[in-house]
Amino acid sequence: MKQFTPQDPQFEERVRASFGRQRFMATIGARLARVAPSEVDIELDVHGDLEQQHGFVHAGVLAAAADSACGYAALTLMPPGTGVLSIEFKINMLRPAAGDRVLARGRVIRAGRTITVCWGEVAAISGTDERTVATMVATMMTVRDRGLTD
Amino acid sequence: MKQFTPQDPQFEERVRASFGRQRFMATIGARLARVAPSEVDIELDVHGDLEQQHGFVHAGVLAAAADSACGYAALTLMPPGTGVLSIEFKINMLRPAAGDRVLARGRVIRAGRTITVCWGEVAAISGTDERTVATMVATMMTVRDRGLTD
Amino acid sequence: MKQFTPQDPQFEERVRASFGRQRFMATIGARLARVAPSEVDIELDVHGDLEQQHGFVHAGVLAAAADSACGYAALTLMPPGTGVLSIEFKINMLRPAAGDRVLARGRVIRAGRTITVCWGEVAAISGTDERTVATMVATMMTVRDRGLTD
Amino acid sequence: MKQFTPQDPQFEERVRASFGRQRFMATIGARLARVAPSEVDIELDVHGDLEQQHGFVHAGVLAAAADSACGYAALTLMPPGTGVLSIEFKINMLRPAAGDRVLARGRVIRAGRTITVCWGEVAAISGTDERTVATMVATMMTVRDRGLTD
Repeated sequence: MKQFTPQDPQFEERVRASFGRQRFMATIGARLARVAPSEVDIELDVHGDLEQQHGFVHAGVLAAAADSACGYAALTLMPPGTGVLSIEFKINMLRPAAGDRVLARGRVIRAGRTITVCWGEVAAISGTDERTVATMVATMMTVRDRGLTD
Repeated sequence: MKQFTPQDPQFEERVRASFGRQRFMATIGARLARVAPSEVDIELDVHGDLEQQHGFVHAGVLAAAADSACGYAALTLMPPGTGVLSIEFKINMLRPAAGDRVLARGRVIRAGRTITVCWGEVAAISGTDERTVATMVATMMTVRDRGLTD
Repeated sequence: MKQFTPQDPQFEERVRASFGRQRFMATIGARLARVAPSEVDIELDVHGDLEQQHGFVHAGVLAAAADSACGYAALTLMPPGTGVLSIEFKINMLRPAAGDRVLARGRVIRAGRTITVCWGEVAAISGTDERTVATMVATMMTVRDRGLTD
Repeated sequence: MKQFTPQDPQFEERVRASFGRQRFMATIGARLARVAPSEVDIELDVHGDLEQQHGFVHAGVLAAAADSACGYAALTLMPPGTGVLSIEFKINMLRPAAGDRVLARGRVIRAGRTITVCWGEVAAISGTDERTVATMVATMMTVRDRGLTD
């Protein structure tokens, strides 16, 4: 795995502050579990308000957590004064998501000046049992001069 | 545009009943706006609890609404006794989503015995102004004999 | 459908010249069938050298034609002195591709300063019968100052 | 990484025979470099007939090699008497592809009864230098009773 070096020494505070402004993360009960260069984990407890029709966690919740994990993984490597924007993502649902907690891991695959590509993996956790329930590939953009700083 | 004929005359009741069990749709304030053969629209009012860090609607909310619209569009064409499962979807964010309401339209492109491919389009609406903010392509599966009937 | 206005009056010559340099298009026998603002069609005759293991046209051929059609559709709207780069695409195969000809249509959905999103549709044609065999969504980038002008 | 056990002891012969029928692989000069349970590598030499307009390997070639590598990785795990079909794939281009050879690695992420999800990685190799130029996620289907056996 390639080593990534942050351009902004304040990358962790920056991710935490931006995450704190994502009110939808609070709506689904998501919290930042880990922030490291090129790597961000987001975690949430499973509860009924997040269910789809068969009692599993809705794909939209998995997508929201993985998209934010990927976006913030990308942001850890972006220069100060810029912001991150999701251009697109694709998610594959591997199994129905059930358990106590959901953990979404975002990892940078390739960081360019404008485009960063990330890998996301979502696990459902019950006690010590962890199963991958979804994988994502996301394309993120570094935005400059648009008043969308993170 | 191809004409699609439902195999289940009760398709609308079936979609409405299944949607009613998606508690996450209630969490984001989404409602079924339209159910027709191969076409389902889902609508929600924009409010602060759905925001990402810059005050726009979170991509996860757009994805959740479009995924459900696509899945139910697919379900309108499925035979009785089956259920619908999202295998994967890809969403492109075209513009920041702001406005009074979000409308996600799901349309069937191709319905096979096992695999149905759908197109989703998400609009942000302010008064009479409507802008496409995201597009989705989703692959849905007809499930049989798994206790996951819709 | 939105109207798109080219920023480069020479857009057609520019697309034709760049297409002429894509030697892989010659390898698969592809030709430019149509160039209009935001719209490019690429066509090829089906023959044995393009087959996968069951005698249908290989998904890689469909992807190559649709990717080039989408890229050139995007290029019709780009300012002089820039070039086009495929960031990513997703293709859904709807049916096995068989027939006399394959026609890939690329259409711009949204053209931004840096990012252009395109829709691609691939049809297999036998006489007057035309069937959609694949659909694509592609993200294209306008490149500046990298020595990759089209 | 999970261990996968083939259901067909003849999996390697089966993959090699099916690959041998993909005439498009011969057209682009691709060969099977490795066949193991859940893992297939496909390799090709870079030459002018595969170029896009700037002299790099065309994205369609990368997609064709990665799609076949993913499909055959999935086939190594499928029961005798079945065939493999690409439902969809998404490819992200990380860098321009230049070098002496291209190597596409297909790996199974999750194998279900009907749906198999694969990860593909394409590297460009010059001497001992290897660079990842593209990544793919592909959804494959096990087909039964359709006269499409591999």
